[in-house]
Amino acid sequence: MTDTNSPSPSRRSLLGWGGAGLALGAAAAGGAVAMARTEDATEPAGSAIAFHGAHQAGIATPVQDRLHFAAFDVTTDDREAFVRLLKDWTEAARRMTAGHAVGEGAYGGLAEAPPDDTGEALGLKPSRLTLTIGFGPSLFEKFGLTDRRPEALVDLPKFAGDNLDKNRSGGDLCIQACADDPQVAVHAVRNLARIGFGKVVIRWSQLGFGKTSSTTPEAQTPRNLMGFKDGTRNIAGTETDRLKKFVWVDEKDEPAWMAGGSYLVARRIRMHIETWDRTSLQEQEDIFGRDKGEGAPVGKAKERDEPFLKAMKPDAHVRLAHPDSNHGATILRRGYSFTDGTDGLGRLDAGLFFLAYQRDVRKGFIPIQRSLAADALNEYIQHVGSALFAVPPGVRDKDDWWGRTLFSKEA
Amino acid sequence: MTDTNSPSPSRRSLLGWGGAGLALGAAAAGGAVAMARTEDATEPAGSAIAFHGAHQAGIATPVQDRLHFAAFDVTTDDREAFVRLLKDWTEAARRMTAGHAVGEGAYGGLAEAPPDDTGEALGLKPSRLTLTIGFGPSLFEKFGLTDRRPEALVDLPKFAGDNLDKNRSGGDLCIQACADDPQVAVHAVRNLARIGFGKVVIRWSQLGFGKTSSTTPEAQTPRNLMGFKDGTRNIAGTETDRLKKFVWVDEKDEPAWMAGGSYLVARRIRMHIETWDRTSLQEQEDIFGRDKGEGAPVGKAKERDEPFLKAMKPDAHVRLAHPDSNHGATILRRGYSFTDGTDGLGRLDAGLFFLAYQRDVRKGFIPIQRSLAADALNEYIQHVGSALFAVPPGVRDKDDWWGRTLFSKEA
Repeated sequence: MTDTNSPSPSRRSLLGWGGAGLALGAAAAGGAVAMARTEDATEPAGSAIAFHGAHQAGIATPVQDRLHFAAFDVTTDDREAFVRLLKDWTEAARRMTAGHAVGEGAYGGLAEAPPDDTGEALGLKPSRLTLTIGFGPSLFEKFGLTDRRPEALVDLPKFAGDNLDKNRSGGDLCIQACADDPQVAVHAVRNLARIGFGKVVIRWSQLGFGKTSSTTPEAQTPRNLMGFKDGTRNIAGTETDRLKKFVWVDEKDEPAWMAGGSYLVARRIRMHIETWDRTSLQEQEDIFGRDKGEGAPVGKAKERDEPFLKAMKPDAHVRLAHPDSNHGATILRRGYSFTDGTDGLGRLDAGLFFLAYQRDVRKGFIPIQRSLAADALNEYIQHVGSALFAVPPGVRDKDDWWGRTLFSKEA
Repeated sequence: MTDTNSPSPSRRSLLGWGGAGLALGAAAAGGAVAMARTEDATEPAGSAIAFHGAHQAGIATPVQDRLHFAAFDVTTDDREAFVRLLKDWTEAARRMTAGHAVGEGAYGGLAEAPPDDTGEALGLKPSRLTLTIGFGPSLFEKFGLTDRRPEALVDLPKFAGDNLDKNRSGGDLCIQACADDPQVAVHAVRNLARIGFGKVVIRWSQLGFGKTSSTTPEAQTPRNLMGFKDGTRNIAGTETDRLKKFVWVDEKDEPAWMAGGSYLVARRIRMHIETWDRTSLQEQEDIFGRDKGEGAPVGKAKERDEPFLKAMKPDAHVRLAHPDSNHGATILRRGYSFTDGTDGLGRLDAGLFFLAYQRDVRKGFIPIQRSLAADALNEYIQHVGSALFAVPPGVRDKDDWWGRTLFSKEA
């Protein structure tokens, strides 16, 4: 480089993100670059979501536009090495959600080493990135933690119509990356996978290109790939009482290490798009129990009008999924539409990647899904992937780390 | 519905898009919904790209954020039926790019019929949607058009390192859908596929989640999944002279029906992400011939500084791809990053879906790609899909249609 000793203004602004941690000498040594995504040296762009808190971000957080979800298997049986990974991941997640790159600000200063960060999110905004970790049932076997496995972390029963692919199901742990920019979400999962090299391996992953749920009370419910709004009365991130009742594990619940956490059900639901598209409007609306244009329940005018369930057909989706049909069972939905190209028959491999959070899956997803065995929609969908994760409480401060309440002896 | 005879204000605004074409009676009949994506009844939101023009939109148009690309095979041998399809597609493309739904404004008014539009883009903005059609070499066999096949529409030679999957290659025709909202792009391809039912079938398709090229002169070049900026001196949509010289087929070129068109090369390039991520910064920068942070060519300070090719290693990517190494060969790039989940070994199935437009592929992509046989980057990438399409000129007005200059006897 010609001018490493007198960086140009744009280069200076690129280098100027972190102040304290940054060795300008590394830049002068050539080849080093700084890793800030923001122009402003002192304050990241406004669109960063706080990483620290009593609960993990990415649950009650207003739903971002895009998703990259990854399930991992743990390949080490060294508990200390795994705990070290959880701490390294936490630090990387703290940086990436703030809009910074992984690592100490420059590429470690060493041109001879691989860069700490893969670089494709350089120059992009924080984009409301959230990273949420969950632990699957199989993790508890690996490290002699079976006595700490929550009773609520059941093995999900087989549901009517399930056609699960084991290569799209399960996993020792998961990372849910949500962001308004897909490149930021993909970058985050890739860098966590890279940090975990030799200790974890991605079992399966799923990109979601369009959110199908809102956790913002005044927002329009986004449409799924059937063209319908669904899940209108989703729990909003501002509804403290409903979150406490239906989403967050309480201090009085067992086990104590899960207090402030939640349980996540992930289901890959393939839609038979081409068949659906040949179905009459009347039948489509009967099946959902809503009109297609406005999203109003049968007999009502507006999407958010209270549904009158008995006006719907007995097998209507809204009717069967409604809390009144399930002893009040209520879940927080955060699903995304996916399209993974085309299958061998020229049909879109598309559908809904369903994500739901709840305080207890035995009082949330399981009874609702059992009720949906009668759903008229089942003719047009198929569940092809499934996983359940215990989502631990939030990382409270800069010294805390993902999973501490489970793995730390003091907890 | 309770109030179809006195629509509520929000419903009225939903119904009020098209004025002339809209039968309010259909709404009163129940179940019918209007198909506007914009609040304003008279003017679509500002972010619609003009569909009519001498050239198709989606080539020189400033690159949108997201892509859904589909290659189709034609399953009918009825030329008239196929021409009818091209006309139907044109009308649907005209509507969707303007932010309207497919069909006559309501769901055909008939609750007993499938809706004209699948509905998932209802309420979304036009999102700068462009739809661009191209014709593959095999199409000319199907309808006795071999005498009209352009000489420039060659069968691409095999290049060093090619590992092409025929299920991700070729196609009788293609649709490139670009938009800032992926749901709008996916909706467009899905609805065109649906209109083509029985005449065409999707052969393969590809989603791109992040653009890797810019056709806006002042814009920063976006980064690819290797974390680098590439293709800095891309042709800008405002560079009329370079577009005329390198992209648009001229009136003096053969065949006449292609005047105003272009040729599109599509290549699915898988990146060996995990291997790349373990490569030193110095080696990465040597391979590209740029620094990673700023994107400046070797020995220079800024991305857009003129590269000094002899300062780079002989096998550096920038050096080998540069027009000066290829007798001036220049192409317009519009590629997108893709991530299609994970392969069976836990590696990201990710890379670059390369899209390049040029006036003559024999003077554009082919010599450049031959030159890249020596590219140091080849250790980290593999071309796994390939297709070439003749992209006809633009649709000039409301009576014109995609492919008229090829199929119409008057042309």
